[in-house]
Parts: sequence; C-alpha cells; structure tokens
Amino acid sequence: MSHPPITVAIQGEVGSFSHAAAVLLHGSSIRLVPCPEFDEIFHAVASGEAERGIVPIENSLAGPVHENYDLLGVHALHVVAEMQVRIRHCLIARPDTVLADVRRVASHPMALAQCRRFFAAHPTLEAVPSYDTAGSVRDLMARHLPAEAVIGPARAAELYGAAVLERDLEDHADNFTRFLAVAREEAPAPERGTAAKISVVFTLPQGPGTLHRALGAIATRGLDLTLIESRPVAGRPWEYVFYVDVLGSANGPVSEALASLKGCARDFRVLGVYSPADGGTSRAP
Amino acid sequence: MSHPPITVAIQGEVGSFSHAAAVLLHGSSIRLVPCPEFDEIFHAVASGEAERGIVPIENSLAGPVHENYDLLGVHALHVVAEMQVRIRHCLIARPDTVLADVRRVASHPMALAQCRRFFAAHPTLEAVPSYDTAGSVRDLMARHLPAEAVIGPARAAELYGAAVLERDLEDHADNFTRFLAVAREEAPAPERGTAAKISVVFTLPQGPGTLHRALGAIATRGLDLTLIESRPVAGRPWEYVFYVDVLGSANGPVSEALASLKGCARDFRVLGVYSPADGGTSRAP
Repeated sequence: MSHPPITVAIQGEVGSFSHAAAVLLHGSSIRLVPCPEFDEIFHAVASGEAERGIVPIENSLAGPVHENYDLLGVHALHVVAEMQVRIRHCLIARPDTVLADVRRVASHPMALAQCRRFFAAHPTLEAVPSYDTAGSVRDLMARHLPAEAVIGPARAAELYGAAVLERDLEDHADNFTRFLAVAREEAPAPERGTAAKISVVFTLPQGPGTLHRALGAIATRGLDLTLIESRPVAGRPWEYVFYVDVLGSANGPVSEALASLKGCARDFRVLGVYSPADGGTSRAP
Repeated sequence: MSHPPITVAIQGEVGSFSHAAAVLLHGSSIRLVPCPEFDEIFHAVASGEAERGIVPIENSLAGPVHENYDLLGVHALHVVAEMQVRIRHCLIARPDTVLADVRRVASHPMALAQCRRFFAAHPTLEAVPSYDTAGSVRDLMARHLPAEAVIGPARAAELYGAAVLERDLEDHADNFTRFLAVAREEAPAPERGTAAKISVVFTLPQGPGTLHRALGAIATRGLDLTLIESRPVAGRPWEYVFYVDVLGSANGPVSEALASLKGCARDFRVLGVYSPADGGTSRAP
C-alpha cells in the first residue's frame, strides 16, 4: 500500500518557481496547496492543512524577500530544509501575440526586480506587478490579465499553452532563488560529520559593539556566517531584528556558539537546523 | 539680489513625503524636479539638472528601500544630509466617493507595505501598486487611475482637492521614513564636537570571521553601528555588498576606525560624512 502524497503549500500556482522548489525537495508526487499570499503558506502549515510550506527567502539578484523573514519571525514553525532553484525568465504571451503588440508585462514583483535591464532596454514596456508568475500565464491565456505578456518560467508557458517570445530576461545568468521548507516539527538532526546550517533570529541590547560581540560567538569558533539580514521592529524606529545563518558541521562547536550567541542577544530563537542546499559551501553551484 | 532657488530632485510629485523631506532640508523656496523613478534622481544630480537629490532609504515599519542602496553603490554621488519624516497615511478619494464604493486602493509599494493591517482588516480591498502617493491622488482626481482610492499624505488630498476618508492607516503610529540628500560634492565636515554620521559601503574577503573582524574596527573604538544592510552582488550568488552607518563625533576616533575598516574590507568607499537627522542619538525623536 502506498503512502498518500505529501501536501505542500506554495505561494503561486502549478508551474511556478515555488512549484519547482517543492518538486526538488519532495519529487513530483506531491499534493500542492496553492496560496495567493505568503502568509497563507504559514497558516496552511500551522493549521495542518499542509505538511510543508515552501518559502522563497532570497534571490541572488534581487535580494531578500522581506515579508518572509517577518513571517518566519512571527510564526512558530521550524525551518527543515533549504533548496536552490536556477531562475530563468521568459517573456510569455498568447500564441497570436507578437512583441510589437506588447505594452504591459505582468509578473511577481520579485521577478520584475530580476529583469531591470530588460525594462531599461525596452522603455515603452510597462511593468505590472502581479501575484504569481505561473498564475499570471494562466490568467493571460484566460484573458483575465490587464497585460499582453508575462515574465515567468518556460514550464508555465508549456503547461498553459502559451508562447515564449524571448528567453533569459534575467539581469544575469547566475540567477538563483533560495527557498526554505517550513514544518510544524523540527527536522531530524543532520548526520554527524555532515554540514549543518543553523538559522537564528534575535534582537540586541542597546549600545555600541553589541552586534560585534554577538557575531564574535560565531567567528571565534571558526564557523561561517553565510547571511545577516536585519528587519525593523514595529514601534521602535531604527531598532532591528537580526536573522543570521551559520554554517558548521553537525558535530562541531555549533551548540557552544549558539549558547554564547544567546548570552549576547535578546529574544533569541533557533528557527531551524538543516542540511544546506549545496552540501556545505556557502556558494551557489 | 536674491539667490535662485535650489533645484531638488525627488521621486514622485508635489505633495509627496519626498517633497516634505526636501522642504525639511531646504525650506519651501525650492525648485522641484519630480522623477517617476528613483534612478532618475541620481541621473538628475549627476548631470547637474538638480543640485540635490532626496532619496528615501529606510522606513521604520517596512524596512530598507533596496533599490536606493543599489543606486548609492553604483553612482559616485555623496551623501550630504539625513532627514526623518513622520509618515501618516490617509485613505484619499474623490469628494463624491464613500468607503463602500472603494474596491481598489493604489499607492507606492512602500506605503502599501506600511498598511498591512488596514488591508487585513478590509479583505475586500485590493492593493494596487503605483509610482507615487501624491501623483496617484492627482491621477485619481483626473480619473486616470484604475482605483477608487489612494493611500497618501493628507497634504496631497488638500493640494489636489480630494477628500480624506480615513486617517492613520499605518500599522503603527511610530512610522518614520529616513531620507538621504545626495549631491555631486561632499558636505562640509560637521563642526568639531558635534555628532557625525558616516555611511560606508564595502565587500569582504571570503572565509569565516571577516564580517566580525570588519565590525571590530568600529566596536573597539566605542563607535555606534546604527545600521547594517546587505545587498546581493550580481553574478556572485550569496556574496554581499555591506552598507554600514557609524555614529561618532566629528573629532573622535572616526578616521582611525575607517582606516582600520578599510584594511579589513574590499571595494571600500565612504558614501558620506554628515550631521545625523536627530542630533546624535540613533533613535527617532
């Protein structure tokens, strides 16, 4: 008897880059829970409607997805895995459309932000923010979109019977999005001797040198800080919540570093301990 | 004989929060150069079309304005001043509109991001991104906007003859935007004994502990790091450019700290030395 497929919540629709990330982690036999907004991913997982949530957290051209940092901070879910997806953007239209017909180009704001050069080279085109790349292709085919073309994955054009007018619209070929998988339970600890990534969130006491002291807990143990992201604290202007990723080995001095970091910080929480997407280096493949 | 008014480039239109920031710095006798996009501010100043550019860099609820960090990095302009503007958002409509008529609410994406609770409380309202708060009020009155209401400053409603349907839409009353003024020349050095803010940008060599070492140049001299923001390096996935603000005093150990920081970093550049908006503390008024 086979197991029922795992339910995975994504923002967007079948054929989106988030769908590709979900398939990378769990294979193609998954039951997808498409969500219009990012916060609905977190609610779907918290309520049990989905077993996993797939959350884009950072793009190598456009930078962090702020809203998802904020959502990781307020929801009590665990980060259980990390995936990297190569992002190649196409200009997608209905099969009867030629480039000269296109005035408005719709896509998710993160996708638009990765194609700034394309818009600079085509000043007559208007960028129209939409909720999803693949969902916009579907809406385009159903003539429910106030645009003549969409920026999105070639896979979405195939799925919905649309045509690809141009390929590789992204500002740089080295375009990757890093996704996190979130769940209600922690991931099993990475095997001893393998690489482990630890995501933590904390605030700091006031005063000079507090961030330096906190990062010292990591640096003095030879661990690699692969990411630091600061987000504002609502109601306390110019105070920040810090999100930090540390790369270590599963039997290294990680717990000692975390205890020391916790001693320097306030509101400290481990978001997750998991295997890094690329097997240990902090660079893309 | 009076001097001609200073020309100041802003993103957006008369009545916007950027306009308020320009008036805060230079008074109301200015000649405004309204720009649809942020990068046009930088081009206007670089070309001499404007003497100053006013750049929103960070909001205390929504966080950094990424694009403007990237533009500070690629343009060779100097940061010469900092201003803080209290941001109060109103729901603005044509005088004959009542709340029940409103389906789509347009505003700049940064303004929409400061009013998440308002949209959560009104799930039938659709947020429509637009290029400017004040410009959208003007377009609303001219019936050139695909929306029935705009989120923006009360001042814009007054200016363009629109009505305020609701006030204080922002998620939290402590809502401030920090603006930077950019110019072709450096600012005069702040007077000895007064507070000085220094903005720098740099990348780091690979390897564990490099950020900790760089921040040590600041921390060991008792200087206050008020901001750290990382932005991706195009074409080098998961490598970052760091933007750092340091608060010191104009005759303190600042130049020693900068020399030491430069020794730890790569591609180091001072963006500007200027008087902080709030006279020395790193907190909002």
